[in-house]
Amino acid sequence: MNISAAQAKLFYIIGFLLVLNSNAQSLGGYDLWLGYSKIEDPAILSEYQKHTKSIFFDNHSPVLDTARKELMRGIGRLLGQPPIMHDSLSLLNTMWVSKKMNLGKDMVSALEADFERIGSEGFIIKSVTVNNKSILLITANEDLGILYGVFNLLQLMKMHKSLEGINIVDAPKIQLRMLNHWDNLDRTVERGYAGFSLWNWQKLPEYKDPRYVDYARANASIGINATVLTNVNANALVLTSAYLEKVAALAEVFRPYGIKVYLTARFSAPIEIGGLNTADPLNKDVIEWWKERAELIYKVIPDFGGFLVKANSEGQPGPQNYGRSHVDGANMLANALRPFNGIVIWRAFVYSEEDATDRAKQAFKEFVPYDGKFLDNVLVQVKNGPIDFQPREPFHPMFGTMPNTPLVMEFQITQEYLGFSSHLVFLPKLFEEVLDAETYRKGKNATVAKVIDGSLFNKKISGMAGVANIGNDLNWTGHPFAQGNWYGYGRLAWNPYLSSETVAEEWLRLTYSNNSEFVEAVKKIMIISREAVVNYMTPLGLHHLMDTGHHYGPGPWVSDLSRPEWNPTYYHKADKEGIGFDRTPSGSNATSQYASEIAKIFNYPETCPEEYLLWFHHLPWDYKLKNGAILWDAIALKYQEGVYGVEEMIRIWEQARTYISVDQFNEVRMLLEIQLKEAKWWRNACLLYFQTFSGRELPPGVELPDENLEFYQSLKFPYAPGN
Amino acid sequence: MNISAAQAKLFYIIGFLLVLNSNAQSLGGYDLWLGYSKIEDPAILSEYQKHTKSIFFDNHSPVLDTARKELMRGIGRLLGQPPIMHDSLSLLNTMWVSKKMNLGKDMVSALEADFERIGSEGFIIKSVTVNNKSILLITANEDLGILYGVFNLLQLMKMHKSLEGINIVDAPKIQLRMLNHWDNLDRTVERGYAGFSLWNWQKLPEYKDPRYVDYARANASIGINATVLTNVNANALVLTSAYLEKVAALAEVFRPYGIKVYLTARFSAPIEIGGLNTADPLNKDVIEWWKERAELIYKVIPDFGGFLVKANSEGQPGPQNYGRSHVDGANMLANALRPFNGIVIWRAFVYSEEDATDRAKQAFKEFVPYDGKFLDNVLVQVKNGPIDFQPREPFHPMFGTMPNTPLVMEFQITQEYLGFSSHLVFLPKLFEEVLDAETYRKGKNATVAKVIDGSLFNKKISGMAGVANIGNDLNWTGHPFAQGNWYGYGRLAWNPYLSSETVAEEWLRLTYSNNSEFVEAVKKIMIISREAVVNYMTPLGLHHLMDTGHHYGPGPWVSDLSRPEWNPTYYHKADKEGIGFDRTPSGSNATSQYASEIAKIFNYPETCPEEYLLWFHHLPWDYKLKNGAILWDAIALKYQEGVYGVEEMIRIWEQARTYISVDQFNEVRMLLEIQLKEAKWWRNACLLYFQTFSGRELPPGVELPDENLEFYQSLKFPYAPGN
Repeated sequence: MNISAAQAKLFYIIGFLLVLNSNAQSLGGYDLWLGYSKIEDPAILSEYQKHTKSIFFDNHSPVLDTARKELMRGIGRLLGQPPIMHDSLSLLNTMWVSKKMNLGKDMVSALEADFERIGSEGFIIKSVTVNNKSILLITANEDLGILYGVFNLLQLMKMHKSLEGINIVDAPKIQLRMLNHWDNLDRTVERGYAGFSLWNWQKLPEYKDPRYVDYARANASIGINATVLTNVNANALVLTSAYLEKVAALAEVFRPYGIKVYLTARFSAPIEIGGLNTADPLNKDVIEWWKERAELIYKVIPDFGGFLVKANSEGQPGPQNYGRSHVDGANMLANALRPFNGIVIWRAFVYSEEDATDRAKQAFKEFVPYDGKFLDNVLVQVKNGPIDFQPREPFHPMFGTMPNTPLVMEFQITQEYLGFSSHLVFLPKLFEEVLDAETYRKGKNATVAKVIDGSLFNKKISGMAGVANIGNDLNWTGHPFAQGNWYGYGRLAWNPYLSSETVAEEWLRLTYSNNSEFVEAVKKIMIISREAVVNYMTPLGLHHLMDTGHHYGPGPWVSDLSRPEWNPTYYHKADKEGIGFDRTPSGSNATSQYASEIAKIFNYPETCPEEYLLWFHHLPWDYKLKNGAILWDAIALKYQEGVYGVEEMIRIWEQARTYISVDQFNEVRMLLEIQLKEAKWWRNACLLYFQTFSGRELPPGVELPDENLEFYQSLKFPYAPGN
Repeated sequence: MNISAAQAKLFYIIGFLLVLNSNAQSLGGYDLWLGYSKIEDPAILSEYQKHTKSIFFDNHSPVLDTARKELMRGIGRLLGQPPIMHDSLSLLNTMWVSKKMNLGKDMVSALEADFERIGSEGFIIKSVTVNNKSILLITANEDLGILYGVFNLLQLMKMHKSLEGINIVDAPKIQLRMLNHWDNLDRTVERGYAGFSLWNWQKLPEYKDPRYVDYARANASIGINATVLTNVNANALVLTSAYLEKVAALAEVFRPYGIKVYLTARFSAPIEIGGLNTADPLNKDVIEWWKERAELIYKVIPDFGGFLVKANSEGQPGPQNYGRSHVDGANMLANALRPFNGIVIWRAFVYSEEDATDRAKQAFKEFVPYDGKFLDNVLVQVKNGPIDFQPREPFHPMFGTMPNTPLVMEFQITQEYLGFSSHLVFLPKLFEEVLDAETYRKGKNATVAKVIDGSLFNKKISGMAGVANIGNDLNWTGHPFAQGNWYGYGRLAWNPYLSSETVAEEWLRLTYSNNSEFVEAVKKIMIISREAVVNYMTPLGLHHLMDTGHHYGPGPWVSDLSRPEWNPTYYHKADKEGIGFDRTPSGSNATSQYASEIAKIFNYPETCPEEYLLWFHHLPWDYKLKNGAILWDAIALKYQEGVYGVEEMIRIWEQARTYISVDQFNEVRMLLEIQLKEAKWWRNACLLYFQTFSGRELPPGVELPDENLEFYQSLKFPYAPGN
């Protein structure tokens, strides 16, 4: 081959890349934040070319092989030219990718402190000098660190960050960074709004859909290392041999990406698939059955992660059916998994149909007394707030009150109560608010984040779970910006101290454009989006106002469901006198579950933050807020503010038009139209309904509803997704 | 760069291309047969460059705008450079795309005969000489013809056909080329095996998923011009205003691609959504309700196609509920649609739970007497065979027996009884067999195709319907080769005289590669695949042997369903004496529904084609076939032949390895593994079961089952898709 042929070839490659690029667009977001197009800025390009001219890649395992492929793909596309990779070290190498064990002694000792900080999953990206030559080094203690380091490097390059003098020493602060899929075996997804389940059980184990690889790549790129494949409302069949083979096939696909699979264990499985007549956790046959089942599972999936269990909650079977406790149930399963290093994650989301206590108090009441009684391979998974993934809740009072039990944070990435995948709501803003919350359980600065990452009580194991918003829609998450919630969840699971603004900026740059005007404008949309949804759905501490079943639109009037705590009226308690749930000592006294420093703030309407006002207080319609407005007017104006927020988002989005493709622009524009329509619907329906109690006019500045209350009450959505 | 560096470079470039290629593949077939990559052959490239150097495109409508965009995209990618398009004619133009009305008089008169042949949807692609210059002309009478012509040109180019002296004058032979989606409003798809429904009703009308455009493109590229969006087991809600707005949004997306939308009309809609207490087609209020509903529909969808109706079949409501006939029902709806030029397509797939007649005879019996009584905007849609989409059925005896009624052919593209989307079965082979069948209803050469295209009885309107195999899987159809069934269906709806082999070759070249070794080898897989599935499921005229509900695996033993004709035992009638359904005059006399020329062949086992033998005859186990084998041995050997067929397909597929990407290869390879496993399952289960009657050993050459009959009978598939 002569030079000009090589050049011709290169030209051809560039043309090919252009074709791919425009193709990528017709894919409607399938690439997530992992699309690579050639860097056009000549200065950046030349810097990166210099660093990646000759890469030594030390490659001896499936995970490292993944890292190598990612590096080749990423650099090849970003630079428009495949990188030259070497399996053995040479003086020409400008970049080294190598585990600690294969580095020279001098290098290791120079980096010793860094290696100690990064543990088994962290990485170092560092500009080092060897023989007077500057080398870009990616290193780690273990294979997975290398993979994470490679993804990190590629993300830096996609964001056009300089690599000169780079010195990144990073490691996850939380060990289990999990997705919880609420996917059923029939491929419906409970609270799934992005199509249906990715897991094609029918064609597994033989057919491993190439999409499973892309799912694993996306997760690994943000550090997610665990996935629970099945719904917490579990089906025992997944524990049968036929299904375990299918699970094993998925585990095999995910393994080279450092992701372990978990399953939900239906507590009554010994009856349903084991032929026993009890699932009593203290029954010998039951204990034996689970032990054998664990053996069977680990035989086909040697690195199986463990079980996630929803027991004695919303009709799911559990140990209480046999007069046993959560501890009895969890420890029995933990014993079965222990020989294989498996864990049990036991959900604290419980409320009883017999218990008349304020639902917000029940989980605390049931679990806190058991602190210290769970085996050490049991974790308790707690939702971020004490009710159920509302647009805003105060942090769950269990955080900080079980010093001897590792608590897993359960966030919901899927927008069950936040407009499904039709509404643009940037959830890391919500996650951040919870993680930053002060528990005062070990003095000041005892934030929820410190409970979760194990640092507050020095835990050996820590975890965060996100209920996945992923389905088989072409773009994975239905709304393009819902990809940002998946991304942001992963980033906060890696580092719960990151600011949501940082995460928003990263995601925008990786997904759309590095243009700073675009990023600044659209970041603003993301940052304001969460407060907008709070305002147009449930302002000032209102909660659980949604319609029955689908949890989509407003239904504050619903009061006829069999269990009182399923009714919105249970939560807002609106009457002629006022509105709100009294959770102070004069009411349910839920505030007593918080540290006294917090309780005393929540207990008085004057000190209670206004965003939680009606969560903790029942107040008269003419109660005066800090700004002088009476409560009724304030509620109405907050709803209006929510609508204005969406209008503002639409205005800002117009500015994005010139920076992205027509399709990218239009897709979000159409969805914002739905969001605006529905923000108005929430406002109108809620205000018309609450007005029947307040008996007051809407204050100036609030748009008049264009339909009457009966209209909103008549709306039906028999085929809303996610049920 | 020295030579060895260049060589190293080449090595990595190749590696890189493979990576790139495998990524294109990670799109997993989303592009269907419409992917364009740059043509590398310099001779072909230069020929195409010459023809497309300067394109005059006469562009004045939404459909023409679509055609223009397709032409630009296709040529741009095939030639690696966007073509130069001109809105006004110049001497420089090498290619003209223009409707007849905008061509010069001389040109029109020279092409007059061609224009007459192509009607409103056909096109002309012709090399013409103007001012001594050779021009590539695409012309048509109407806009849609231009769009079809553009797609045709691009397909020719993708297949590297020379355009020198080209002279194509083509037009569809069938007017309504329809897809029937059996999609439910909850996005499940009855008999859908490629994920779930594309129609995201929840986000419509505001959000028009970009995928809808890609769906329309794919259909337009093969000439499909009509789509029924909803399941024949219909839900009246789709006829309410809220849903009609959503339907209108889809219609708006499809319109520029020449595709009209249709809906299924639930006969009891006047009760369910109209508040009436009857749906009697002769009732004044019912008549009025449908008229008003039609007005409402056409107000929001001015070019709405019409209704597809399944009435009085399998529990669906219909006119017989009120003592009225199919004619009463169909004509009432036809009157409602007539003012808007809408049509009614009334399905003939009926069998009654009270009628003890052989199910194969019932549709004929119910419909043939009504010939000539339907209004002229009514078509009757008849499945290809008299039972229900079995791997093989003789053609439906209604074809040719209703000279005064337009009969629409209903094929099933989705593989309800042919291995779902796990099995590679090339259905055009089946379609061709039916279309080529002789009805003898107007002498010789009165084929089914001639009934369908209207030429036999000189019909004004003609149609073909295909039950869609499309879902929201990334590759649309689950199995990559099932894309070929969608493609092939479209091609045969355009021209029912095409050979399945031609269609297979086109699809392979458009989808995978023009390499002739690849095409010849893989075409063979496609061609043998249909006989293989017949053999491993239902050889020698056996039929309806599948298990209950899911219709997936074998269940020849099923005999306990409430309706006799739902049981496989009803169809195979195996006993100690023999096996098969006697449909001759000594039995149900279904043969009498065929022309006497055919009946006399079917009536005798000696003359009956062996592929229909047990469809028409109950024969003893030791009945001697033409090849001398006794029936039992022949059945067993046919099952074995089916398994061998799949093994042969796997062997041939190995040859494809070098011509396509690793992912493309593996995907099909994994699916063939499922197919082989299940071919053996069918063989083993059926033979073990029939053996309980025949009492004979398996003949030499048939592999022994590795499980016993009880095992196969015990298999359950609670979450099989498509129910």
